[in-house]
Amino acid sequence: MMTDTIAAISTPAGEGGIAVIRISGPDSVGIADRIFSYKGKLSDEPTHTVHYGHITHPSTGERIEEVLVTVMLAPRSFTTEDVVEISCHGGIISVKKVLDLVLEQGIRLAEPGEFTKRAFLNGRIDLAQAEAVIDLIRAKSDRAFKIALKQVEGSLSKQVKQLRHRLVELMAHIEVNIDYPEHDVEELTNAYIRDKCSAAIDELEKLLVTAEQGKILREGIVTAIVGRPNVGKSSLLNALAQDNKAIVTDIPGTTRDVIEEYVNLNGIPLKLLDTAGLRETEDVVERIGVERSRTALTDADLIVLVLNWNEPLHEDEKRLIEDVRDRQTVVVLNKTDLPQRTDVSYIERRFPAERIVRMSVKEQEGIETLGRAIGELFFGGQLETNDMTYVSNVRHIHLLKRAKSALEEAYRAADERVPIDMIQIDIRSSWEHLGELVGDAVGESLIDQIFSQFCLGK
Amino acid sequence: MMTDTIAAISTPAGEGGIAVIRISGPDSVGIADRIFSYKGKLSDEPTHTVHYGHITHPSTGERIEEVLVTVMLAPRSFTTEDVVEISCHGGIISVKKVLDLVLEQGIRLAEPGEFTKRAFLNGRIDLAQAEAVIDLIRAKSDRAFKIALKQVEGSLSKQVKQLRHRLVELMAHIEVNIDYPEHDVEELTNAYIRDKCSAAIDELEKLLVTAEQGKILREGIVTAIVGRPNVGKSSLLNALAQDNKAIVTDIPGTTRDVIEEYVNLNGIPLKLLDTAGLRETEDVVERIGVERSRTALTDADLIVLVLNWNEPLHEDEKRLIEDVRDRQTVVVLNKTDLPQRTDVSYIERRFPAERIVRMSVKEQEGIETLGRAIGELFFGGQLETNDMTYVSNVRHIHLLKRAKSALEEAYRAADERVPIDMIQIDIRSSWEHLGELVGDAVGESLIDQIFSQFCLGK
Repeated sequence: MMTDTIAAISTPAGEGGIAVIRISGPDSVGIADRIFSYKGKLSDEPTHTVHYGHITHPSTGERIEEVLVTVMLAPRSFTTEDVVEISCHGGIISVKKVLDLVLEQGIRLAEPGEFTKRAFLNGRIDLAQAEAVIDLIRAKSDRAFKIALKQVEGSLSKQVKQLRHRLVELMAHIEVNIDYPEHDVEELTNAYIRDKCSAAIDELEKLLVTAEQGKILREGIVTAIVGRPNVGKSSLLNALAQDNKAIVTDIPGTTRDVIEEYVNLNGIPLKLLDTAGLRETEDVVERIGVERSRTALTDADLIVLVLNWNEPLHEDEKRLIEDVRDRQTVVVLNKTDLPQRTDVSYIERRFPAERIVRMSVKEQEGIETLGRAIGELFFGGQLETNDMTYVSNVRHIHLLKRAKSALEEAYRAADERVPIDMIQIDIRSSWEHLGELVGDAVGESLIDQIFSQFCLGK
Repeated sequence: MMTDTIAAISTPAGEGGIAVIRISGPDSVGIADRIFSYKGKLSDEPTHTVHYGHITHPSTGERIEEVLVTVMLAPRSFTTEDVVEISCHGGIISVKKVLDLVLEQGIRLAEPGEFTKRAFLNGRIDLAQAEAVIDLIRAKSDRAFKIALKQVEGSLSKQVKQLRHRLVELMAHIEVNIDYPEHDVEELTNAYIRDKCSAAIDELEKLLVTAEQGKILREGIVTAIVGRPNVGKSSLLNALAQDNKAIVTDIPGTTRDVIEEYVNLNGIPLKLLDTAGLRETEDVVERIGVERSRTALTDADLIVLVLNWNEPLHEDEKRLIEDVRDRQTVVVLNKTDLPQRTDVSYIERRFPAERIVRMSVKEQEGIETLGRAIGELFFGGQLETNDMTYVSNVRHIHLLKRAKSALEEAYRAADERVPIDMIQIDIRSSWEHLGELVGDAVGESLIDQIFSQFCLGK
């Protein structure tokens, strides 16, 4: 059992009004008391209270920062341990000075994800819930956020736990049969097993159906915007990125790089390939343009081919069309504010009508149609997250698949009258895979691996 | 009087464990109650308490986020108004969703610096203190941070207010004389005025002496690292930047750009010119190297000329030496791990010994010596911020200078027996300039201008 006390900066790096340093563990209140001076004593304060004062060097008495300190006592905290949060001025130096002083008191710097890991190890949340915390933070669209929030609140865990409960019942039933084997009961048992397995398989199937969409919503559709120079690729990119930029405008130290590669189109997150390249393209002209486009094609889930409504098709473009017509492609005919000069029928012979979008980026027309076309292509128009549990994590998908195939094995075995204790092994294996998903009896190295993907301070 | 309720994201943008949305104003608790669901009612809660629950859409009932909400009631808050802080998961989408819902309740988005502006307008802090809040956030070195913290806590304001108090006493004394003019008293009064003015001038002088150092500590020494290609400019830059980078490593969405242009050398902030250029230089070789160096010279407060200990001086370098020998220059002889081949005596004839630093960036030797040489050059070795009040803000420096020269005018006038009510005008003008510094009776446009330099959410 881990019982040391850990600390980290929990707010994003950069300049802002507030930065928060979080301390968790048995010594957190005692140590905070040593460096925080105000009119009282933190260890006398009730839980969930906030106190104004100064972080002061315990030996020199030097004032380090003006802060608010929040005390949240075990078990009513994020980690279920005693937690102290120090809210200081949000500058680089401020947090560093306070964190340094905190660490000097013999507290260890938390590893990435260690606060959440403790919430899991202390039993407040299960592993699937803990994993969703990082999805929540990393979410690039509303829908991805909703999926993660549902999972943090335990919607997937609940279903998996119910399934496991039923598999335990089934195993208990079989156990009785192994102990008291009678012929007619065995026959009954085989039918019973098939029934139960089949129902469980159906449910796993239902969860797995959401996996592809869930994964896309979580990670974004990897999208390549391709086309010749000056057809409006970078204008389209800017138009798509506009909404995201609005979030960060005027905040110093923004994470433009992080955000810019994602855009949010009707709630669908697109992960754009080579956005830097796209921005350059308009300058670099001909030479690189099409080459670059053809390279980008390889990795993309979705290709947005931009053509100029106002120009006849170029030979390069005809070649691009051949490259992409068998892929998940949406064709954008840009510059519809100008007269038509392109050969639309040539394009219509090669792409279904619902994948051709007329657009004028300049006049801000057609962006929504593009969103609908993409939604149709990836979700068949069925994009509704409100009441669904989506499986979006690759580890979860993998475990659900293994749980399902173990049950299919059990079903087949029951069908073929394999000895019942052999069948039991398959069912048990399915139960264990599902257990791994919610973090029941998983190894330390797996846990370490999962939480190492977190950011510092969570 | 402003009485509307405002809100903004107060933590830096980006991904982290926690993000905080701050709401301030008379409706903050009522509005938070509308969108925050938990077991109680915020308006019944005592001040300075924290509550766990969910941000929920008031009409659809949809759960938006899992949050902690802190209530701080007037007047015991940052703004002295009712303040609610919502602490949610630190992702882009999370804060945006919560902020959007908060704003939908009829709250206005806060302007940059508006929370601090309210703290000033409501009288919790004076203008000089408020201005130091942004210095605290922007501080690029420990010393700059300490200076700002002292000012936030009112050290400068206190001195200025004492001075103003003494000027008021002086004016009162004069007033009495104007009302009851008797010859011998007037004589006495002139001496008295000279005495008082002279003492006040001394004190202003003492404050202004700190101004140059204060300004440097606040804004950094604008530094150009120059030299031929491959002498080790970019390695030196990396060595200098190392400590700053350590702050942000492993935190996603770091503000590397913001930080990298500043380095912290023995607590002295250097603002490096053209760091991007420097990093390129090693690749681009000869052609651009020296040209770029000569351009960078113009704007620099400090020039660090890097020469190769292991190579004879190049003609280019001799020209560079002529360019910089009359400037604030420190010469770095790099690569002392290799045999000496450069003409050290040529350099020693042109620069004082204390400005020549032998260094091996590769072996990490000499960096501290460089720091000491720079400290000596700019602060004469006297860099002690612990008990000093530094004036670092240009506006403050300007006002202190005007206050001082008005008093000098009064002193001269008293000396020349100018009619006493004329002298009174000068003293009053000095008193007013000092008033402007602490924000006594300043115009709205000046206040707006000052706070517009803040970041959002403070």
